[in-house]
Amino acid sequence: MNTTPARNLISLPRAMLLGIVSLAPLASPAAAQTTPSATASPATTTETIRSRGFAKYSKDSAFRPYEFDRHAVGEHDILIDILYAGICHSDIHHALEDWRKEEYPMVPGHEIVGRIAQVGGKVTKFKVGDHAGVGCMVNSCRSCENCGNHEEQYCDRRVMTYASKDHYHGGLMTQGGYSDRIVLSQDFAIKVPEGAELDKVAPLLCAGITTYSPIRHTKIGKGDKVAVAGFGGLGHMAVQYAVKLGAEVTVFDITEDKRQDALSMGAAKYVNVNTSDELKGLDNTFRVLISTIPAKYDMAMYVKMLRLDGDLVVLGLPAMRDQPSVDAATLVFQSRRRVWGSQIGGIKETQEMLDYSVANRIYPRVEIIPFSKLDEAYQRVLKGEVKFRYVIDNSTLDASWRAANAAPAQPGQPK
Amino acid sequence: MNTTPARNLISLPRAMLLGIVSLAPLASPAAAQTTPSATASPATTTETIRSRGFAKYSKDSAFRPYEFDRHAVGEHDILIDILYAGICHSDIHHALEDWRKEEYPMVPGHEIVGRIAQVGGKVTKFKVGDHAGVGCMVNSCRSCENCGNHEEQYCDRRVMTYASKDHYHGGLMTQGGYSDRIVLSQDFAIKVPEGAELDKVAPLLCAGITTYSPIRHTKIGKGDKVAVAGFGGLGHMAVQYAVKLGAEVTVFDITEDKRQDALSMGAAKYVNVNTSDELKGLDNTFRVLISTIPAKYDMAMYVKMLRLDGDLVVLGLPAMRDQPSVDAATLVFQSRRRVWGSQIGGIKETQEMLDYSVANRIYPRVEIIPFSKLDEAYQRVLKGEVKFRYVIDNSTLDASWRAANAAPAQPGQPK
Repeated sequence: MNTTPARNLISLPRAMLLGIVSLAPLASPAAAQTTPSATASPATTTETIRSRGFAKYSKDSAFRPYEFDRHAVGEHDILIDILYAGICHSDIHHALEDWRKEEYPMVPGHEIVGRIAQVGGKVTKFKVGDHAGVGCMVNSCRSCENCGNHEEQYCDRRVMTYASKDHYHGGLMTQGGYSDRIVLSQDFAIKVPEGAELDKVAPLLCAGITTYSPIRHTKIGKGDKVAVAGFGGLGHMAVQYAVKLGAEVTVFDITEDKRQDALSMGAAKYVNVNTSDELKGLDNTFRVLISTIPAKYDMAMYVKMLRLDGDLVVLGLPAMRDQPSVDAATLVFQSRRRVWGSQIGGIKETQEMLDYSVANRIYPRVEIIPFSKLDEAYQRVLKGEVKFRYVIDNSTLDASWRAANAAPAQPGQPK
Repeated sequence: MNTTPARNLISLPRAMLLGIVSLAPLASPAAAQTTPSATASPATTTETIRSRGFAKYSKDSAFRPYEFDRHAVGEHDILIDILYAGICHSDIHHALEDWRKEEYPMVPGHEIVGRIAQVGGKVTKFKVGDHAGVGCMVNSCRSCENCGNHEEQYCDRRVMTYASKDHYHGGLMTQGGYSDRIVLSQDFAIKVPEGAELDKVAPLLCAGITTYSPIRHTKIGKGDKVAVAGFGGLGHMAVQYAVKLGAEVTVFDITEDKRQDALSMGAAKYVNVNTSDELKGLDNTFRVLISTIPAKYDMAMYVKMLRLDGDLVVLGLPAMRDQPSVDAATLVFQSRRRVWGSQIGGIKETQEMLDYSVANRIYPRVEIIPFSKLDEAYQRVLKGEVKFRYVIDNSTLDASWRAANAAPAQPGQPK
């Protein structure tokens, strides 16, 4: 699961203090008018892009059709017809308000791949017909230290792909990939290499980069003992990257159902955390342990499994009501075991990840679904039943849209 | 405050599983007989060393005279007449059972300096009359990876200076520096450079190395923005080392009483955490923040003050009932801010620290007290009133011993 959008919880108030967040009404036609910023993508036209998608209308609603405006295609912008969109666990956390109060209607989706339908006058990176990917970000300030270091994911003024105020476009609320098309700056779109398996590319844009980045940052290589806790959408990518780089990988999860999957992906060992015998003898073992667990868990147990100077990298961000934590005693008794979080990766690193993944045929295992199965898919992700990523076939939008509009609206939901 | 001995909480059960911990009665004459181990310091004599000190008889007792046996002076051992012993906050945590159940009588003290009175037949590092220091450890296995890397403090079979079962000497319980003399392997004693101010050397053996080690590990240098939270025995050493290395140092504490002290030691800024205005504008500021706080505190506030790729180094270990902690959300929202603990340093690094401190005249600020003031000193440390380290003048032992034995025993205490 990607965890990045939640940072807005922090950065939005700061952005508002700086006066860079518009206080105009959200997602209204007025707010949808493009207001070019001095620092990013001046628009060549004010013609907004009408889009259709499936939205949550409240945290309790089912997904229902939603029509909305995206900002115009500026000089440096591209318009992408979306082919596939992955369902990330963080989509669910957002949709259910697990992390913060949200704005609705909300169209989630930040694992996007599609075909370019239109390019702005100064676009050089893409041409119409190219395939492009979009991950968790669609813009950033481009002038801060983090942007200068190609770490736009840590820019205080970045704009996330959905559920984020786009302060470069008049405060328009962004909407994600559960929709027909998207507009963004060419600088935040990723080139899809020739020969890529398009339906499997989408999840790489979040699950791929979120695991690839800390694996590279910790310089995982041949012979390293590495662990991956939580074997879902993120976890199964982490295993594949670490195995490819030569590490000896141990996988932790709470089910027997995924044991053979882990071993088939090259894991040396699979530990069912509910089987206490399997947990024995693992203290002081791993140089890097990557936690993708989306629920409460015993963080101290994993800290104890690290070797001296090892790293526990926290990628999974459970709901605020279920936060795991580590106390000072655990940190001091297990000294020089570093605990830290990581969020996706910069655009340059995301391109590197996609090139590496396609070249080495490292892909998520996906189940392709139509829009009409969205609600069911959310339930199955919550139960940990998906193997390992649902991907929406966006070509099903018209049919699902018509069927949904023909169905009687449920109480409290717009039709 | 040093936090190392608490690790025994972890390592002792493991040591017992390995069968290397004697189950003989503790501190009895029988257990005091030397049982040479195959891996360390075979004794040349079985004559134990009778010692006198001041001990806690329970967590509620006052300090009272205590006579006990130390192991014999083996071939590689030295006997030190103790001149000064520092009072570390962790002595108090041990004495009060803040971290775990303890054995009594307990003679605390792991900041020791003295003059060598006797050397074993194969001692080459010292001669009688030399000054030597003893910190938190008196032995380790010498064969594990950590010992091989000069990080004996992380050896699973290390023996702490007090309140630790000495599995290289028949399971005898170690006793610390609030006493007349101590026996240990030459390999765990530190050479005191010529010209050192002896009364100020003692606290360097714990407060000095505990701060020096992570400051060196994080490569603090010129221009680095560094913070020290908790300005007591450890904190005032951390400030001096970081300032000497060229860092711009900010100090956090909860009193106005230490503001001028911090500035006089070269701190660029002092923040009274109880004054909310002073806390403003500090997010994303420090490359390293060293926490020596011995009580519960808001760890997330300090994580937010770190720059990208910054380190929060936890040295302070509050009582188990008052543990601060950091949750996954804080770690992920503030990604790539590493949180980790550190314990003292290895013997080689401790020697380096002592040489560096004496050469650069970096010393603790101390108040010298007689043994008769021990109980009062503990109370004042708990109130945060000491500036900055109490040091016992061990030459007062005879007088304090006679006075204590002449005084009527309090209820429940041995005379």
